[in-house]
Amino acid sequence: MEKYAIIVAGGSGSRMGSEIPKQFLVLDNYPILMHTILAFLSYNKNIKIILVLPGSSFQEWNVLCSKYHFEFTGTLVAGGNSRFQSVKNGLSTIKNDQSLVAIHDGVRPLVTSEIIHTSFELAEQKGSAIAATQPKESIRIEYGNGSKSMDRSKIRMIQTPQTFRTYLIKEAFEAFEDSSEFTDDASVAEKYGVEIHLFEGNYSNIKITTPEDMIFARAILSEKK
Amino acid sequence: MEKYAIIVAGGSGSRMGSEIPKQFLVLDNYPILMHTILAFLSYNKNIKIILVLPGSSFQEWNVLCSKYHFEFTGTLVAGGNSRFQSVKNGLSTIKNDQSLVAIHDGVRPLVTSEIIHTSFELAEQKGSAIAATQPKESIRIEYGNGSKSMDRSKIRMIQTPQTFRTYLIKEAFEAFEDSSEFTDDASVAEKYGVEIHLFEGNYSNIKITTPEDMIFARAILSEKK
Repeated sequence: MEKYAIIVAGGSGSRMGSEIPKQFLVLDNYPILMHTILAFLSYNKNIKIILVLPGSSFQEWNVLCSKYHFEFTGTLVAGGNSRFQSVKNGLSTIKNDQSLVAIHDGVRPLVTSEIIHTSFELAEQKGSAIAATQPKESIRIEYGNGSKSMDRSKIRMIQTPQTFRTYLIKEAFEAFEDSSEFTDDASVAEKYGVEIHLFEGNYSNIKITTPEDMIFARAILSEKK
Repeated sequence: MEKYAIIVAGGSGSRMGSEIPKQFLVLDNYPILMHTILAFLSYNKNIKIILVLPGSSFQEWNVLCSKYHFEFTGTLVAGGNSRFQSVKNGLSTIKNDQSLVAIHDGVRPLVTSEIIHTSFELAEQKGSAIAATQPKESIRIEYGNGSKSMDRSKIRMIQTPQTFRTYLIKEAFEAFEDSSEFTDDASVAEKYGVEIHLFEGNYSNIKITTPEDMIFARAILSEKK
């Protein structure tokens, strides 16, 4: 089956204490987003990449591609006002519904070929495949002024890729308007009635959100060399 | 008020793929456990350290102290068969109940003076102070064969230190036998009726559990220099 990857990169640098959008921060010689795209191409050089960026970032992206001699041959799509709308815009460019699509955060550059492979395999069999890890910490739930301990063995921390049979996830995104209940693509699919299949992600596959994450990512990349 | 720190280090190296117990793995020139103890001494050189180790590790600890010229002046206490029993053994050595005690994982070497300070301040005011962070990922709860998305804004990932007025946490540990419902010290205190006060921990204050964590810890330590 034909394989697509929608890389969603709409974030700002606010939690990073940076003016530069997170996806454009340079990690080990080139911007995070290029690492992420290369991770998918290194899994399969024929995968069709759909990069969703704010329209206002297109020029910056093109400048970065020149600067880093990065030949981007995928489809560039303008994002919307929310992650939901951005993913929807990305999905709308896929004409072949009998395909598979991995939706992935632009700022998860450490995703491995193994994880991407597993996600496509499982999605082909089951319709959906969501990378997830078990928390290493005890968990509490806040309520009112207090909090209550909770059995962490039941909790899963959700990562990306979130991979689907394309027609299922397209239908799901077409069925709804954006809502705060949609924290990720799996939650949209779930509301549409798609069964959500989790698989074991990787603790290194972090979403770069805070300055510590940059330190971690740099260390993992230098370890890989 | 007099301040104690119980450092609990009973873990094995199993998830690390190592024969050496995690707390004795060398990180940046000396064992993890020494970093952890030094973090508390660097917050306050007069803090009373109670180190809980398996009795079978005492000799190894002494050898490491000689090897790394580490002068340990705290109290060394033999752990029990569970974390619960180990903490209880540590608590039983504190004679001054009108004091404060921080209970901390031996394999959280990156705890900062600021976090330790906040935990003692809050525990003195409120009786308990538990370091916690917000998850960066979406959360799902498994049930049966499926899973359900969950509002992550209510979820807190629990760290240590978990700091208490000593008499409260001693009473709590004396009131119960060990049980699988006790995933940390806060859950013991909670069951005894102590109000649990969370405060904002730090994403760097990781529990070293898997090989990625060693890479992260090394990177953070080298950043600090």
